[in-house]
Amino acid sequence: MHLAMKRLSSFLGGQWLAGSGAAVALTNPTTEAAIAEVCSTGYDLAAALDYGRRTGRAALRELSFAQRGELIATMAKAIHGAREELIALAVENGGNTRGDAKFDIDGAAATLSHYAELGAKLGNSTLLADGDAISVGRTARMAGQHVWVTRPGVAIHINAFNFPAWGLAEKAACALLAGMPVLSKPATATALVTHRLMEILAPLLPAGVLQLLCGSAATLLDFARPGDVIAFTGSSGTAKALRAHPNVIEHALRLNIEADSLNAAVLAPDVDLSSETGQLFLGDVTRDMTQKTGQKCTAIRRVMVPSERLDDVAAALCERLDAIVVGDPSRDDVRMGPVATANQFRDVRAGITRLAAATDSVRGGTGELAAPRGVDNGKGYFINPVLRSTRDAHNCAALHDHEVFGPVSTLAAYDGTATDAAALVARGEGGLVASAYSDDREWTTRFVVDAAAWNGRLFLGSAKMAAQSPGPGTVLPSLIHGGPGRAGGGEELGGSRGLAFYMQRCALEGDATVLKAIVGGAA
Amino acid sequence: MHLAMKRLSSFLGGQWLAGSGAAVALTNPTTEAAIAEVCSTGYDLAAALDYGRRTGRAALRELSFAQRGELIATMAKAIHGAREELIALAVENGGNTRGDAKFDIDGAAATLSHYAELGAKLGNSTLLADGDAISVGRTARMAGQHVWVTRPGVAIHINAFNFPAWGLAEKAACALLAGMPVLSKPATATALVTHRLMEILAPLLPAGVLQLLCGSAATLLDFARPGDVIAFTGSSGTAKALRAHPNVIEHALRLNIEADSLNAAVLAPDVDLSSETGQLFLGDVTRDMTQKTGQKCTAIRRVMVPSERLDDVAAALCERLDAIVVGDPSRDDVRMGPVATANQFRDVRAGITRLAAATDSVRGGTGELAAPRGVDNGKGYFINPVLRSTRDAHNCAALHDHEVFGPVSTLAAYDGTATDAAALVARGEGGLVASAYSDDREWTTRFVVDAAAWNGRLFLGSAKMAAQSPGPGTVLPSLIHGGPGRAGGGEELGGSRGLAFYMQRCALEGDATVLKAIVGGAA
Repeated sequence: MHLAMKRLSSFLGGQWLAGSGAAVALTNPTTEAAIAEVCSTGYDLAAALDYGRRTGRAALRELSFAQRGELIATMAKAIHGAREELIALAVENGGNTRGDAKFDIDGAAATLSHYAELGAKLGNSTLLADGDAISVGRTARMAGQHVWVTRPGVAIHINAFNFPAWGLAEKAACALLAGMPVLSKPATATALVTHRLMEILAPLLPAGVLQLLCGSAATLLDFARPGDVIAFTGSSGTAKALRAHPNVIEHALRLNIEADSLNAAVLAPDVDLSSETGQLFLGDVTRDMTQKTGQKCTAIRRVMVPSERLDDVAAALCERLDAIVVGDPSRDDVRMGPVATANQFRDVRAGITRLAAATDSVRGGTGELAAPRGVDNGKGYFINPVLRSTRDAHNCAALHDHEVFGPVSTLAAYDGTATDAAALVARGEGGLVASAYSDDREWTTRFVVDAAAWNGRLFLGSAKMAAQSPGPGTVLPSLIHGGPGRAGGGEELGGSRGLAFYMQRCALEGDATVLKAIVGGAA
Repeated sequence: MHLAMKRLSSFLGGQWLAGSGAAVALTNPTTEAAIAEVCSTGYDLAAALDYGRRTGRAALRELSFAQRGELIATMAKAIHGAREELIALAVENGGNTRGDAKFDIDGAAATLSHYAELGAKLGNSTLLADGDAISVGRTARMAGQHVWVTRPGVAIHINAFNFPAWGLAEKAACALLAGMPVLSKPATATALVTHRLMEILAPLLPAGVLQLLCGSAATLLDFARPGDVIAFTGSSGTAKALRAHPNVIEHALRLNIEADSLNAAVLAPDVDLSSETGQLFLGDVTRDMTQKTGQKCTAIRRVMVPSERLDDVAAALCERLDAIVVGDPSRDDVRMGPVATANQFRDVRAGITRLAAATDSVRGGTGELAAPRGVDNGKGYFINPVLRSTRDAHNCAALHDHEVFGPVSTLAAYDGTATDAAALVARGEGGLVASAYSDDREWTTRFVVDAAAWNGRLFLGSAKMAAQSPGPGTVLPSLIHGGPGRAGGGEELGGSRGLAFYMQRCALEGDATVLKAIVGGAA
């Protein structure tokens, strides 16, 4: 059996290479059956990075933004064309329902399409003007002009297990459009989707432009050099190790981090639960707790509710959560699958226990689930959606300090003022997104002013946008993704803002007509 | 004598406080006489930072950009009003000539004035729109709008010894206009100017808005918290220690670094030395080698010259350097003073020795100076301007790897192509500024395309701008200052770009009319 198991190769230096050394198994989290394996050692990572820097960069350097955009459009189309196949792999390897898998895979294609369109808009140039020329002398002849130019190295992407398709695509879209070659490392546990994605994309791309490392990234950063950049999505523990890496410290390597986040949703006192805004709030919390089994970096972990409304909200959410059928995600009648791995299962259960010591149980106890639908007795990494609550939110450290990366959320009472809600949001010490549900503009404005500095995004739910809301948990390519502090201090996407990490801003200073010619006609 | 010596206090928590513990002497580098002392211990730094976060932030929060601009204008005027007094202190404590001191002090006032004007332009708001609202739903009603909001902590500024006035001012201008309170720590050795500056500014500013720590920053970062930011200018060694600080690693504290830089000047083959462009080149190299005794982070350390022109350029630079009178900087007939401290003197001499092992001497040997003008025999930290050269620039590691922070530069032969020059520039692994002197637009464009990604600024010298050129060594508030890699990876100034470090970008998502009201009418 071991001999017959699929072994995931890496695409490095223009070739598919099998690793060596001890094999790590990828499993189906519904059945716990091993379905593939990855061997991490035996790769010449220094050579792979150098191949990107030389061969990959040379290919991208010849292309304008518009031409890079065309390449990215080809990637989007290829992913869309392989949609059903990729969905099946995500269900098998990720414990995804079909809906979960589409969220990842369609999100990958949509993000690539967004950057393909941006490339077309940026046109036939290879550098970007940043603002207009300004006078820096006595007359307009002595001018300054800021430009963005492609960084001279390779982009190292280290992605999380929860978005094997989107994770590769959203980072690669920005890097490639900016002109940087990419070496992408998916999380091993769910690499089946990413590996297949790379098989589909490799024949479409110039040599060296996109490489894939299936296996451990343990020594990868040892070979990074000035000019390279590193973008990471994952746990704050790994993020700290990356920030402390000797090579990062020594060479001031550019590092973008997207890590833990205790995302909050706030119900304002003006909102009746039966109203459109109230229903939006309940729907968003339920979706974020259960979509991808709560394994989204943007999922709602803290739900702030005016004190006197806590019981009503608890009851309404329980009703919705009770309707979520948990079980084999390949079944059409199942709404939530298992968490992705045995490790996740242990971590989530431990996190619930930690929360349980400081909060009251509303639903789901500590996550035990008697009979997941369609699953053999005792198998699979299933968690019963857990809702907890506290009436002492300001003194509940467990609520604000530790992200439980599963279908787990906690209701927290606040005094109804936007300022108190924002103070509780801030206790998370930096988040990716916070949402507030209100039709009172004064309340909303106060919340934005008080909470914005602690978040990368604020989702403002109201009756007027409810019908077309993507929900706070959806990362859009046109808006930035990333947050301060605990969330890592990074920033991705946001349309053209997402290119900045992969480019160097440089101030050009000189004769105005020379600068104009360089910006206007750079090849 | 010890009892009578001036002891520099710190301005913390709204009070002037004397430190305790061992005293560090500030000296006059011309005479080596002690002129003041600083005691570093005994300060409650946690309380000082918290005073900034609460009292300082509360004061700034009440002010619009325009009102903060008015405050900053007041600072600029006060510095200008105390100009003569500050110049005298800089000559005494910094070894500055009057010209050197004006460069620092007038630069401080001019940078503050620039940000005062920017504040007036930004108007009566406290948050900044970043781009226009975009549609993120099926209709324009569901909108996204990026905004910049003030970060919620205190800005910790750690400055270098070479610009005691400008260093405080350029960082404070950006932070204060962005709405963040500042705690500024000058380099101890030259703190006399900064200390007097703070005495002048303190009565003009609301409580907690600007604090000054005279003394060691050893434990300061232990008390930084999520929401705070740290901006540092100084050596790459200290920069590495800051990046590796446990609190920075743990909390992803935002860190801006401006460190070492092997800034290059390149003479293109089309330029005759007797031409306007040629004279600009010679003048800029001479100025950057000797202004502030070569102690500028933007000073030219590497001079790239086409092979066959090396001897001519060497002769022309020697002629100019020979005309620079070195000695007591308080004398009108002296053009260059000593380096600032005994430590600097040792470091510069050691650096020259290191360079000397790998390059040929053109002028100044290893920096010994027989008789500085007007100085008692054997006293003072004087260095003879040193020019060295190499015809094997690609294989001369000492040329590219180690910044000698004094009146020292090295001529390096290249093949005359912009691509070869840019490749040598890149060997510095990231710089603050590189300059190129050419009237051949094709050559210049090629140089920009190849070199821009390794530099924060490119100065393009030509005949048409020569008459009004500020030179590559001058940092302008309207252009960014900072560079990738060895230069630290930071970015300061650049007009409104300089505010970004002190603000959080946040994507607002919701009903278009709500977003419009928030951006238009935020108080």
